[in-house]
Amino acid sequence: MSSSLSPVYAASVPAGAAAEVASHGHRAEVGGVLRRCRELVRPALVEAVGRLHPWTGEMAAHALGWCDAAGTPDPAASEGKGVRQALAVLGAEAVGADGGVAVAGAVAVELVHTFSLMHDDIMDGDALRRQRPAVWKAYGTGPAVLAGDALHSLAVHCLAEAPGPWTGDAVRRLCGALNALVCGQAEDLRFERRPWSGPGAVGMEQYRAMAEHKTGALLGCAVALGAVLGGAPSGTVAALERAGRHLGVAFQAVDDLLGIWGEPMVTGKPVHGDLRLRKKTYPVLAAVAGDGPAARELAVLLESPGPLDDAAVAHAAVLVEEAGGRAAAREEARRHLDAARHGLRGFALAPGAAGDLDALFASLLDRDW
Amino acid sequence: MSSSLSPVYAASVPAGAAAEVASHGHRAEVGGVLRRCRELVRPALVEAVGRLHPWTGEMAAHALGWCDAAGTPDPAASEGKGVRQALAVLGAEAVGADGGVAVAGAVAVELVHTFSLMHDDIMDGDALRRQRPAVWKAYGTGPAVLAGDALHSLAVHCLAEAPGPWTGDAVRRLCGALNALVCGQAEDLRFERRPWSGPGAVGMEQYRAMAEHKTGALLGCAVALGAVLGGAPSGTVAALERAGRHLGVAFQAVDDLLGIWGEPMVTGKPVHGDLRLRKKTYPVLAAVAGDGPAARELAVLLESPGPLDDAAVAHAAVLVEEAGGRAAAREEARRHLDAARHGLRGFALAPGAAGDLDALFASLLDRDW
Repeated sequence: MSSSLSPVYAASVPAGAAAEVASHGHRAEVGGVLRRCRELVRPALVEAVGRLHPWTGEMAAHALGWCDAAGTPDPAASEGKGVRQALAVLGAEAVGADGGVAVAGAVAVELVHTFSLMHDDIMDGDALRRQRPAVWKAYGTGPAVLAGDALHSLAVHCLAEAPGPWTGDAVRRLCGALNALVCGQAEDLRFERRPWSGPGAVGMEQYRAMAEHKTGALLGCAVALGAVLGGAPSGTVAALERAGRHLGVAFQAVDDLLGIWGEPMVTGKPVHGDLRLRKKTYPVLAAVAGDGPAARELAVLLESPGPLDDAAVAHAAVLVEEAGGRAAAREEARRHLDAARHGLRGFALAPGAAGDLDALFASLLDRDW
Repeated sequence: MSSSLSPVYAASVPAGAAAEVASHGHRAEVGGVLRRCRELVRPALVEAVGRLHPWTGEMAAHALGWCDAAGTPDPAASEGKGVRQALAVLGAEAVGADGGVAVAGAVAVELVHTFSLMHDDIMDGDALRRQRPAVWKAYGTGPAVLAGDALHSLAVHCLAEAPGPWTGDAVRRLCGALNALVCGQAEDLRFERRPWSGPGAVGMEQYRAMAEHKTGALLGCAVALGAVLGGAPSGTVAALERAGRHLGVAFQAVDDLLGIWGEPMVTGKPVHGDLRLRKKTYPVLAAVAGDGPAARELAVLLESPGPLDDAAVAHAAVLVEEAGGRAAAREEARRHLDAARHGLRGFALAPGAAGDLDALFASLLDRDW
């Protein structure tokens, strides 16, 4: 293990500018890194899904983008980028191990992610996922609950069966991430019941904690699992996990931006979808927390009874931007991405994999999917 | 560790008769055993549930019978017998260990059981559980999915954090039971789509395999976890697990009988409930598989379109009995209970705990809850 990365944060280079360069310069390269990791992990993932009951296996294959709702292979289906499995593989490589040692961890985090999407879509009433019917829409709510449960169990089982001295630590970390993820989803659902303004309103720190639980815990776990299975010392594992958690908070802020201003053909979700549902996301909460006329008008609009029509939703999007919510969410994403990348520089990592990790981190800021 | 139990099955005593005596003679004693185990496990169970998000924790407390749907302690609520936690404690004691070593396993199986009831009630559309609204009915489907997920994760986490050299083995066994349980639920749901007669009908062996997965795997795991955490050799663990699986098949057959002929005030479920829903349970499948006039009339009734009214349901219950389905299910329960009790006698176990286990096994045949 050697390091060509600066051991301390290069404060003389504006972090934002560095991220900008990396994110554009490494776009093509990141696609190649993700593909390489998917190809490394795929045989084990296919083998794991093959252990399910054929019916839950079919739903899992649908959710993973391997086949359509009729169970036939669908080359047009979108498979997902596999960010979590790549983080696990790169986590192992970054600590000097072969990426292959992280495969069980990569399978586990990918299955956990798929399970959580299946169940979250039920809870949130989201009928579309990657431009296709969500599993509950295609198969029914009960079957989708069951398929999610099957993936949840399978994820832990695959990791628990991995040979080697680090399995126990890895399983405990995965369980911790699962608990945090479920806790974050609970916090998010409870936010829906709270007022937009006044003393009961959701604070930005509370929102950040939710994002760290709901999104950051699994990203942090993914990269930590790779490092654990690669035999890294606990300090290195902890630092990589922290970096992954920051990445998750940035990822969630970008997700929130895409939920309002994303391109439906790319995100697979309706335009202004989160605003129509009055979801309490970072840009909207930040906008409402302001004290200008746009913030006040937005609060009145969001607190109005009855559904929001297309014009009201479009106007709300303008108000969020005017009140500074869009810029605040971008800044939140940038700040946490910088913290995540900073976290990669504090100790010795294998240069090739650390560069891939850094490029992957950076690419998530300007993603459009 | 010593044994006062016969090392081979006492074939000269009719097993059925032995079970009959034990089940009546030990009823009061079994209540005391279950209570003792609940008291041993409760502090750890309370501590575990206290680690959940307050909202999912409230739903868990409702499901465990600790409080009502408003979250206030409800002394009238029925807590559940705690059969699975008792099996874990007695499994440890039977191999000569202190029951306390099994507490993490007992907590895990009890949480898994609670999670599975929460999600099964959603899938089966069951609105009542222990004479109270099911969690999905009291809190909504999405929240009940989430609370089940929280308990599922927590169960594995509690076990994975248990200290000692047997944790890895215990976690793998719990994961195996979780996979089997979800697989059994999938098989059960798929049975609903199959015809009552003809080549696609559900065979009795297929039904038994489903029952072993859905019910037997967790009971077998419970007693095996106790033995594993008690440091038992693998042969003993395997024998206890097999016994628990047989117990589960017997338990399911009794459950099926109670689903038709149970006393609603005791079971907390509507009279003839399973027949009204046309559930494919052991007594009904066994009845339809017969070749007498009652079997044929029953098949026609079950295959008729539209809902069954009260009179049709009551008549169906009579036909199931006439066609021998009730007797066949009783015989199935008795046969597997005998096999389970036989399994306790093949090797040296601590006599007190082995006696408690045997009495608990036997009591489940004639339960009315």
